[in-house]
Amino acid sequence: MSPRLPVEAILTDIDSLERYAHDASEAVAPMPPSAVVRVASTAEVSAVMEAAHAHRVPVTPRAAGTGRVGGAVPMAGGIVLALERMNSIRGIEAGDSLAVVEPGVVTGELHRAVESEGLFYPPDPNSWESCTLGGNIATNAGGPRAFGYGVTRDYVLGLEAVMADGSVMQVGRRTRKGVTGYDLVGLLVGSEGTLGVITEATVRLLPNPARVVTLVALVASEADIAPSLAALRARGIRPRCAELLDAHTLGLVRLKVGFAIPESARALLLIELDAAPDASDRLDAELERAGNALVDAGALEVLVATQSHERERLWAARRELSWALRTLAKNKLSEDVVVPVTELGALLEFCTATAERTKIRMPAYGHAGDGNVHVNFLWDTEDERPRVEEAIEALFERVIALRGTLSGEHGIGVLKAPYLGLEQSDAVVALEKRIKDAWDPAGILNPGKIFPGEATRALHNFHGAC
Amino acid sequence: MSPRLPVEAILTDIDSLERYAHDASEAVAPMPPSAVVRVASTAEVSAVMEAAHAHRVPVTPRAAGTGRVGGAVPMAGGIVLALERMNSIRGIEAGDSLAVVEPGVVTGELHRAVESEGLFYPPDPNSWESCTLGGNIATNAGGPRAFGYGVTRDYVLGLEAVMADGSVMQVGRRTRKGVTGYDLVGLLVGSEGTLGVITEATVRLLPNPARVVTLVALVASEADIAPSLAALRARGIRPRCAELLDAHTLGLVRLKVGFAIPESARALLLIELDAAPDASDRLDAELERAGNALVDAGALEVLVATQSHERERLWAARRELSWALRTLAKNKLSEDVVVPVTELGALLEFCTATAERTKIRMPAYGHAGDGNVHVNFLWDTEDERPRVEEAIEALFERVIALRGTLSGEHGIGVLKAPYLGLEQSDAVVALEKRIKDAWDPAGILNPGKIFPGEATRALHNFHGAC
Repeated sequence: MSPRLPVEAILTDIDSLERYAHDASEAVAPMPPSAVVRVASTAEVSAVMEAAHAHRVPVTPRAAGTGRVGGAVPMAGGIVLALERMNSIRGIEAGDSLAVVEPGVVTGELHRAVESEGLFYPPDPNSWESCTLGGNIATNAGGPRAFGYGVTRDYVLGLEAVMADGSVMQVGRRTRKGVTGYDLVGLLVGSEGTLGVITEATVRLLPNPARVVTLVALVASEADIAPSLAALRARGIRPRCAELLDAHTLGLVRLKVGFAIPESARALLLIELDAAPDASDRLDAELERAGNALVDAGALEVLVATQSHERERLWAARRELSWALRTLAKNKLSEDVVVPVTELGALLEFCTATAERTKIRMPAYGHAGDGNVHVNFLWDTEDERPRVEEAIEALFERVIALRGTLSGEHGIGVLKAPYLGLEQSDAVVALEKRIKDAWDPAGILNPGKIFPGEATRALHNFHGAC
Repeated sequence: MSPRLPVEAILTDIDSLERYAHDASEAVAPMPPSAVVRVASTAEVSAVMEAAHAHRVPVTPRAAGTGRVGGAVPMAGGIVLALERMNSIRGIEAGDSLAVVEPGVVTGELHRAVESEGLFYPPDPNSWESCTLGGNIATNAGGPRAFGYGVTRDYVLGLEAVMADGSVMQVGRRTRKGVTGYDLVGLLVGSEGTLGVITEATVRLLPNPARVVTLVALVASEADIAPSLAALRARGIRPRCAELLDAHTLGLVRLKVGFAIPESARALLLIELDAAPDASDRLDAELERAGNALVDAGALEVLVATQSHERERLWAARRELSWALRTLAKNKLSEDVVVPVTELGALLEFCTATAERTKIRMPAYGHAGDGNVHVNFLWDTEDERPRVEEAIEALFERVIALRGTLSGEHGIGVLKAPYLGLEQSDAVVALEKRIKDAWDPAGILNPGKIFPGEATRALHNFHGAC
């Protein structure tokens, strides 16, 4: 029953193998993959998995390769299963507020397609113009709007997935509610391609809150961020975004935002509110309440952008931060830790102190409302590397001490796997592995990911003592 | 290390065994349990599970016993693990918008405790005055507010759970975002006590939208419900509740709602909107827009209740429906099926036709916004029972044909287990069982639940060919 894969779907030239051997992270594959298979259908995915299963060949599923922790980097050779050709939006059903998509659909394309029908797909990872739904689902991606609307997991209703043995499963449903059996959708979302290959997703949509306004609060200290958020919460205001720039990143965007930033400002909080187009009165009133709340909480200045070009200028500066930081040093690493919101000040203070101690620059920005901060590490020369490692490990230890978590949206992949034990006990990791072993006993699906020591183990398993 | 269980925690008298052998459903235990253990701490739960694991004794976890599908009914004798004494709210942390609770905390008590601090825990199953958080988590409970706010799963951040072998696990986190490892919280929520015993939960809270208004739309046909909801959605209005009464149930509450219901009204849609206390302007404007939308969609009449006593009268009638229906016949069964919202009319039409064909009364009401309808079956004499079974099976088949799901909030338990195969393929069920087997190889945790044929298999496993 397996379809023949067209010969042009299989790439084995060295350039292609190289191109598909890395993602947007620093993770390095220990050997090139043997082949890249650019599948075009669920049947082809199933055929690849069936053959890989029969011959015990590792398979690394890959969508756009925009991941930040090496999740799509093949760590044990074998096949890279490229899903970018499965890029069609199979349907948008406005009446039932859902869309059915293939894994290679670019997130921004889905945004535009549903918005043209008055609908809204909230998850908006920073790379939304290039990342795809398959990768978003594999990592349970977030983005600024996650504060108001939740993460990818909150929007995935049903999945079609191909298991390690090539069998095709329909899990979940088309309705928002449903408690039949175990939550296999929730288990697959965020499993980083280690439990199954997503070949179709049914995602929930909302009415598009087309009118959006942006407030910017400039504050005198990073310690003022959490109280500002508390002031909004106390007035029942639930922004869709609440983004943070620390003193370093504020300095970087100073000349790009289109308004003067006083020297005394040491951090910036960007708040967005939204509403349905014909609920403008409501939004204007909320905007005023939010502004007052921020001023009362001690903001140095509160600026309002209600026009889309003003908003776009602010956001362009925010979105470019990741790249702007990259120009400051030869090397950059970004960690997307999360702490309880009340600990935001403590986290940022720790970053400043650690940067001073290790002499590694550590600018931070991110999703303040969720306590999800992108802490960056910048360095130029190889001899700084040990201090970078020291700073990263100190950060993770501090985050766990503050009762936070290692990753808010990037996942664990290869790069954070060594640190998993900081957050999860051996017993919890063993529970997770029992699921992995139950579903993929040969360990062929995305080997070397999430669990500590897996990368070495995978190499050994599939290639002997190499 | 195991604590001695105080002798008064263990009940073996026949009255107690009988009392703990059923829940709020028709499910019947084939034999009484051997003992009821009323645990008071995680350590005691662990001790019970460790002993049960060593001696291969089945354990049925039980919170308030308000379940509707037999999830807490011991199907293979053994121990009923009663968690009702673990009923303390361990903490409410307003700054981080979370609460830490034991499984025996009554849902309504948590509501009141957090509301007194200006916070809000949305899930509100109809039995909120008696059901508990542990049961809510085991079944992933919903309620009317699920339309606006989501279900229990959307509010559980972290769990402490005791596994089949007595080991105590901390899974999940205290922050809303977090993608470290597999989503074990999501897997435990809704697993109906078959994967672990919840001993503590960290739940997310929202600011309390303390001002609430209620609209009632009377419509000429059940087919008008879905278009009315679409009209609200088209205007960007997201109610917190959208409840439905069909012609039968409307008749039952006719004299209790405090306003005249025209004879031509064949269904009722109850809409609730809410807002923060100081956002009254917004709410008044939204109320007006919602009313207009419902009138434009063809409602016969739209009534507004803005005062809490008016609202309470409406809701009391809605809440009492379940009991009011019970007075109409000797026997009542309620199935909480879900269909896509666009199929609500088709579902209700099917119920009317099936009731006519089988001569079994089938009044329906429920959570229209989520397409989650409680279809009731009323009958008096045993000779009607085969027709009830016929009607239920026809309903489930129709729901699946309409691309819905068997259960929106009650779970599968014992009563729906025979029908699981209508919705899930054998392959999907096998995937679920692989998780169950991986975590509870001896099958001692709540045996006989969810999977078809499990009740018989459990009896056989633990008691030979009895």
